[in-house]
Amino acid sequence: MATHKLLLLPGDGIGPEVMGEVKRLIDWLNSAGIAKFETDTGLVGGSAYDAHKVSISEGDMAKALAADAIIFGAVGGPKWDAVPYEVRPEAGLLRLRKDLALFANLRPAVCYPALADASSLKREAVEGLDIVIVRELTGGVYFGEPKTITDLGNGQKRAVDTQVYDTYEIERIGRVAFELARKRKNKVTSMEKRNVMKSGVLWNEVMTAVHKREYPDVMLEHQLADSGGMMLVKAPKQFDVIVTDNLFGDMLSDIAAMLTGSLGMLPSASLGEVDVKSKKRKALYEPVHGSAPDIAGKGLANPIAMISSFGMALRYSFDMGDLADKVDAAIAAVLASGLRTADIKSEGTTAASTTQMGEAILKEL
Amino acid sequence: MATHKLLLLPGDGIGPEVMGEVKRLIDWLNSAGIAKFETDTGLVGGSAYDAHKVSISEGDMAKALAADAIIFGAVGGPKWDAVPYEVRPEAGLLRLRKDLALFANLRPAVCYPALADASSLKREAVEGLDIVIVRELTGGVYFGEPKTITDLGNGQKRAVDTQVYDTYEIERIGRVAFELARKRKNKVTSMEKRNVMKSGVLWNEVMTAVHKREYPDVMLEHQLADSGGMMLVKAPKQFDVIVTDNLFGDMLSDIAAMLTGSLGMLPSASLGEVDVKSKKRKALYEPVHGSAPDIAGKGLANPIAMISSFGMALRYSFDMGDLADKVDAAIAAVLASGLRTADIKSEGTTAASTTQMGEAILKEL
Ligand SMILES: CC(C)[C@H](C(=O)O)[C@@H](O)C(=O)O
Ligand SMILES: CC(C)[C@H](C(=O)O)[C@@H](O)C(=O)O
Repeated sequence: MATHKLLLLPGDGIGPEVMGEVKRLIDWLNSAGIAKFETDTGLVGGSAYDAHKVSISEGDMAKALAADAIIFGAVGGPKWDAVPYEVRPEAGLLRLRKDLALFANLRPAVCYPALADASSLKREAVEGLDIVIVRELTGGVYFGEPKTITDLGNGQKRAVDTQVYDTYEIERIGRVAFELARKRKNKVTSMEKRNVMKSGVLWNEVMTAVHKREYPDVMLEHQLADSGGMMLVKAPKQFDVIVTDNLFGDMLSDIAAMLTGSLGMLPSASLGEVDVKSKKRKALYEPVHGSAPDIAGKGLANPIAMISSFGMALRYSFDMGDLADKVDAAIAAVLASGLRTADIKSEGTTAASTTQMGEAILKEL
Repeated sequence: MATHKLLLLPGDGIGPEVMGEVKRLIDWLNSAGIAKFETDTGLVGGSAYDAHKVSISEGDMAKALAADAIIFGAVGGPKWDAVPYEVRPEAGLLRLRKDLALFANLRPAVCYPALADASSLKREAVEGLDIVIVRELTGGVYFGEPKTITDLGNGQKRAVDTQVYDTYEIERIGRVAFELARKRKNKVTSMEKRNVMKSGVLWNEVMTAVHKREYPDVMLEHQLADSGGMMLVKAPKQFDVIVTDNLFGDMLSDIAAMLTGSLGMLPSASLGEVDVKSKKRKALYEPVHGSAPDIAGKGLANPIAMISSFGMALRYSFDMGDLADKVDAAIAAVLASGLRTADIKSEGTTAASTTQMGEAILKEL
């Protein structure tokens, strides 16, 4: 049995708590002889700042580069609101994405039938929702230069951010979206603002070309990001795979997540290019939810998004699709049994702490 | 009685149809001696392109600069998808905003009780919703330079857009938001991505300073634009006034509009700075909805957003708040009577065409 090297980066807030439940699952997989994971742990975000005055240390970056997959919790919180921009908690996550070239961010938004009523949308609008946002993650305004604040004198400053996209960056994320769509409902919706942004013009042009050249069998639609956002709120089930840039992806995937009514349930995968030689790809898995500092340390956090992110690791990094299916089934079974953490609690269901939820899922497995 | 100079720019798609109903209202106000409007009409968007191969002619720009207010329909449509970027329909609207320095875009999102069920959100989430998005409209990524596509050779191109904000731009839009909040529920939520964008850092810093210095009596909250978008979908009623940049404002105001379930009902105002001498300000009023080419020319369009935009003109440009109230009341009365255009039709209500709806509102007045 091959040994897989995992780096666990719990981060801040509820990160360590939900990571604890993944750790429990890994330990069991190891001891039951189902898989062989070698785990190491590092610091990222505010916790790295507290320890080393950086958002991630060079040592942990080296571990990240050497790992087969990174399991990431969440970063940030008001405690670090005043730290210098360069070492703010988010910088650690952004550096991981950039240095590991994790350009493809997959964010499924699935509405669990048992939880459809938790959505602010009407049941009929979201029941059975199953879409994936494919977000470009290493380009755009997140990383473009110049990115500066300049003092102009007279109390005036000028802030500049730069959105940059090259053809190859749009091509490769397009391919990820089209490949994914082929395994799903065969439909891709590309979103940009070509009526205002040059990057939107190029995005549209390249998506159209990749589609025509390599994926004519997949259905491709184009939407302006603003009307796309509206359609997402009005009738989300019309979509299958949505592909969009880094910043629009940030907004749209959060909105898609909120539609499901269960932010605490949604995983994500950030993937690099497949290496031609080793056939491996760098990967980081993280829940869509943030560090939720207000409920941290109280046993209130929902570990499902984190466990489900680990499930995505099994599927995408370790070719253990069967095991991943079992993890998903265990989560569904526990939900069906009526167990709920505080964020998804409704009348007639049984309250569970972070640990109780993690244990129940493990028991089901 | 003072004469007010209006420039009507119907634009494309359903623009001319809904503008027709405003024209009817203006004619009546004139003939009944209630007000004195001098109207002129111009071309913008695709219709200007068809006539002059530009998105707005210099002649119409001159008229726009000379008018007391511009009443704008909508621009764009698939017919002009392939025209050169510089003369695409949207360019006309963007030039008007920029050359008239209409930096403050006010977009109310109000949920009419009679229409709450048309929302994809649950009634309890949106009933009574009454928020305003204050969107910065002449800065940010819409107008920043460089804005280019460069051929890099080897089939590679590079697209660049630039987000630029200066202190004074953030200060003046902040003041609009704080002033507005004082007349409402006294709460402003500022949204940006300070964890990723330098313009977000400056935005946050300047809003905080303006608040402390000039509006300490107003409540100010900061939200990251992505979580702000989520909160908007989850529990929109927690907001009063949201202030945000041009691009986030584009996305967030469309989403807010969609929450109300009645996009065809929502007006907007784009305002310039008040001139110290004349006490006047440049202004453009337009519905939030677009040109809806699919239903154009069929008498299906809802003219209420357009009429209500004219109501905003009465209020903000001509100090006729009483008359504006009467327009709003007439709209509400017609809705209460059960008349509905196709977009808001539900069981047990009476179908109306664009013209029938416009006539009914006028009759009510
Ligand atoms: C934490 C933050 C930098 C990050 C982002 O903006 O990408 C987060 O919002 C996300 O979506 O993963
Ligand atoms: C038509 C388009 C240029 C415009 C924008 O992006 O600002 C529209 O979406 C709007 O919100 O007024």
